[in-house]
Amino acid sequence: MEATTFVLFGATGDLAKRKIYPALFNLFIDQKLPQFFSVIGLGRRELSNKAFQSNVEQSLHMFSRREATDPIIVEQFLSAFRYSVLDVGHKEDYQTLLQLIEQQEQELQVAPNRMFYLSVGPEFFETITANIHESGLGSTDGWRRLVIEKPFGHDLQSARELNKNLSKAFTEDEIFRIDHYLGKPMVQKLEVLQKSNPVLKALWDNRYIANVQITANEIVGVEERAGYYDHVGAVRDMFQNHMLQLLMMLTIHLPNNSTVDNVRYKKKLVMDSLEALRKEDVGSHVIRGQYAAGTIQGEPVVGYTSEPNIAATSRNDTFIAAKLQIDDYFWRGVPFYIRTGKRMKDKSTRIVIEFKEPLKQSGANDDNALPNLLVFEISPNEGIVLQLNSRDPLHKGEFKPLNIDFHESQGNVPEAYENLICDALQGDSTFFAHWDEVELSWQWVQPILEAYEENTVPLHLYEAGTYGPLESDELLKQDGYHWWFDESKVAEVRTEVSV
Amino acid sequence: MEATTFVLFGATGDLAKRKIYPALFNLFIDQKLPQFFSVIGLGRRELSNKAFQSNVEQSLHMFSRREATDPIIVEQFLSAFRYSVLDVGHKEDYQTLLQLIEQQEQELQVAPNRMFYLSVGPEFFETITANIHESGLGSTDGWRRLVIEKPFGHDLQSARELNKNLSKAFTEDEIFRIDHYLGKPMVQKLEVLQKSNPVLKALWDNRYIANVQITANEIVGVEERAGYYDHVGAVRDMFQNHMLQLLMMLTIHLPNNSTVDNVRYKKKLVMDSLEALRKEDVGSHVIRGQYAAGTIQGEPVVGYTSEPNIAATSRNDTFIAAKLQIDDYFWRGVPFYIRTGKRMKDKSTRIVIEFKEPLKQSGANDDNALPNLLVFEISPNEGIVLQLNSRDPLHKGEFKPLNIDFHESQGNVPEAYENLICDALQGDSTFFAHWDEVELSWQWVQPILEAYEENTVPLHLYEAGTYGPLESDELLKQDGYHWWFDESKVAEVRTEVSV
Repeated sequence: MEATTFVLFGATGDLAKRKIYPALFNLFIDQKLPQFFSVIGLGRRELSNKAFQSNVEQSLHMFSRREATDPIIVEQFLSAFRYSVLDVGHKEDYQTLLQLIEQQEQELQVAPNRMFYLSVGPEFFETITANIHESGLGSTDGWRRLVIEKPFGHDLQSARELNKNLSKAFTEDEIFRIDHYLGKPMVQKLEVLQKSNPVLKALWDNRYIANVQITANEIVGVEERAGYYDHVGAVRDMFQNHMLQLLMMLTIHLPNNSTVDNVRYKKKLVMDSLEALRKEDVGSHVIRGQYAAGTIQGEPVVGYTSEPNIAATSRNDTFIAAKLQIDDYFWRGVPFYIRTGKRMKDKSTRIVIEFKEPLKQSGANDDNALPNLLVFEISPNEGIVLQLNSRDPLHKGEFKPLNIDFHESQGNVPEAYENLICDALQGDSTFFAHWDEVELSWQWVQPILEAYEENTVPLHLYEAGTYGPLESDELLKQDGYHWWFDESKVAEVRTEVSV
Repeated sequence: MEATTFVLFGATGDLAKRKIYPALFNLFIDQKLPQFFSVIGLGRRELSNKAFQSNVEQSLHMFSRREATDPIIVEQFLSAFRYSVLDVGHKEDYQTLLQLIEQQEQELQVAPNRMFYLSVGPEFFETITANIHESGLGSTDGWRRLVIEKPFGHDLQSARELNKNLSKAFTEDEIFRIDHYLGKPMVQKLEVLQKSNPVLKALWDNRYIANVQITANEIVGVEERAGYYDHVGAVRDMFQNHMLQLLMMLTIHLPNNSTVDNVRYKKKLVMDSLEALRKEDVGSHVIRGQYAAGTIQGEPVVGYTSEPNIAATSRNDTFIAAKLQIDDYFWRGVPFYIRTGKRMKDKSTRIVIEFKEPLKQSGANDDNALPNLLVFEISPNEGIVLQLNSRDPLHKGEFKPLNIDFHESQGNVPEAYENLICDALQGDSTFFAHWDEVELSWQWVQPILEAYEENTVPLHLYEAGTYGPLESDELLKQDGYHWWFDESKVAEVRTEVSV
């Protein structure tokens, strides 16, 4: 792997401590870092190299999946870390940084490859990239890359604006937009699973699939992010990025020997094929929800508008369910139901593929046969379940579901950030959000943002600790389906079965 | 369930003790026996009812999967058992039996339904059924059923002869031929799995399946059955019945609401579609093997011809591998490889479905991708495995197999005999061998029998503790395949993979 200077803006921040340092450490243990690798941490406050290294070490002890117990290994790892003070608005600080980097590159006699990782708020993206450009930090004989994290804009217009400004300093190929859902091991498996397995390929279209359900439910409420979240809502915080990325990863049809360009192109195709939502149809295709007071795991919790730092009159969305349609040869006629919410009954990110049941209409005595399901559990557990119908030899009248499953043993799985940083270091942008996708995603949700803004669609309150507003169930029910694995629903199904 | 008198010939025999009594007891516990149910055990030696009941009880303690610990339940169960002396050739004994049965039927005032279970050697089948007929035992206002166990003949002609004679006393609908492989829980699941699951249905033909491998390997040698086995060989003992039945169960296409008649008709269709083997092709399609001395689980074992009561010159087959072809719209072009042998390396009955790999020819860098497999483990463990290709995010160059599996928790699964006896009591012959199948199976193997007899095909010796003669591997290799899950083969594949 090529020598790299990893320039980290926001080196004293929370994300760096929780995710980036542990990820780098695990990559180090796995020998997945370049041989010549140095990190320059940047932050506003003064910090010695030693103090910085000690902070990094602390984060390993707290957050690394692998224990940092061997002092020799830890020291070797930390020796790559330097610190430099930088105020994002101070042009001189960029000059100091440039000198430091150039000095290091010359000392080590390595290629001047620089990766700029912006672990800072989005309000600083444009200032920092402009300064990287102007200072000469970006003018290198090696390669340069920019890693940024969402949010990429607040709506279609602001996203375009941001991208225009980033483009002044970095080309699209140099920009690595992290959507950490794309780093999750099961999501990464999705791509290879559907591409490399004839038995899945055979089933992967509207001839066999009845509907697809993509769920990302959280138990937590707004927590400490009130100020930010209240301006964003579930639609921007989860739906426009993570949920639509999951949709793309599930539905792209990749050639066997696919390249990054293929992935980018095919994901764009999916978004291009996504049936546009007209503003007047938002009410019938999208359920906007906000949690009211309720009970989570036996404990009473307040409603959204009673949360600290949330206005009592806030109409912000904490839940969204939507029905989407991909208008291409493979997916026409298969509804995609997507939902995500806070203060839900249980925490789960999963994709459920429900297969068609051609026998349902045959009037046979198999009323208790369930549809075949293929379930990808993404988090908190990682797994795949194929649900089939079987029967006890001694109770022939009754079908019973037979689950064929795979569960990844916990603990040994690389974290999303490991996968993503490793890819970025190698210049592989397969699992990053490309501008086309970001733009088309904003374009798709824009009518929703406007309908919310203009209050032309209802805001449905739902009790905390449930599966969201009843209208979300209704969205599927009108098509003859229901959300799978919602506890109450399962009970319902079982009741039907036992009749 | 209708009142039944269960008339058991061979009541002091081994099969009765090991299988039939425990099965009846477990059905009793599961409340799957008729309310009015009595067993009349028959044997040559004198035995009091009490002594008979005590024998039965003993067999429960030794062989029942459910513990017979509750004395009240055990006593209640045993109270249904009576014993009567019967010499199969003594016509008077049948009269005594008839009186006993009629007396019981009158006392209990139940319908005269009689199930004759022949747990005796095949040499007695014709005598017993003739005597049942002549004595009037078979002339009842209720129903009568005959349950027999293989072997059903020794070749095509003798099977036809036997059937002709049985037909004098019982109609085909009244004859329940036990093939205990059809009672195994996973085999029973096969039927419902392929019938009731759209995702399997979609894959179940020559568009997706490359080949099918049906294996029944035993570790044991000829054991105490030398005299019998040496006249039978693997082809008659296993292949003509169990193996061909597995083939039928896997390949029939059943309608949703299938009836017994459907199953019978569709299994016949499979056998009708089986490409006939010409005697001159036996050498190229069938591998005949006999075990030589070798090592089983670290212990040296003698060769077949050194076994007690086996002639040193015996050319009997203890192994057979064959390649079959079903010439219909679904299966044309899919080779079915079937093998069974004694003194093999490990004990396993399984079906492996290997799927086609259309991407194999695309020249992509996925040489270590394995074909998709669907594996039905029938015994000793019961399970289903779907093997897919996946990849570690951190090792993208390498595929690794991902197994999605289901394993039935041991201990709680009904035994084959429970399933079969329960079915016979209800008159459901779905999982029994019907005459058409038996006849067509004999017809298919007849050229093999003749080629063996005439010694026109080689007898390949194989070392005990291996996977049979190398020619068996060659049979698949010439088509570009190999037997899955043979240990040495797996090692081979891994080696190829790591190159």
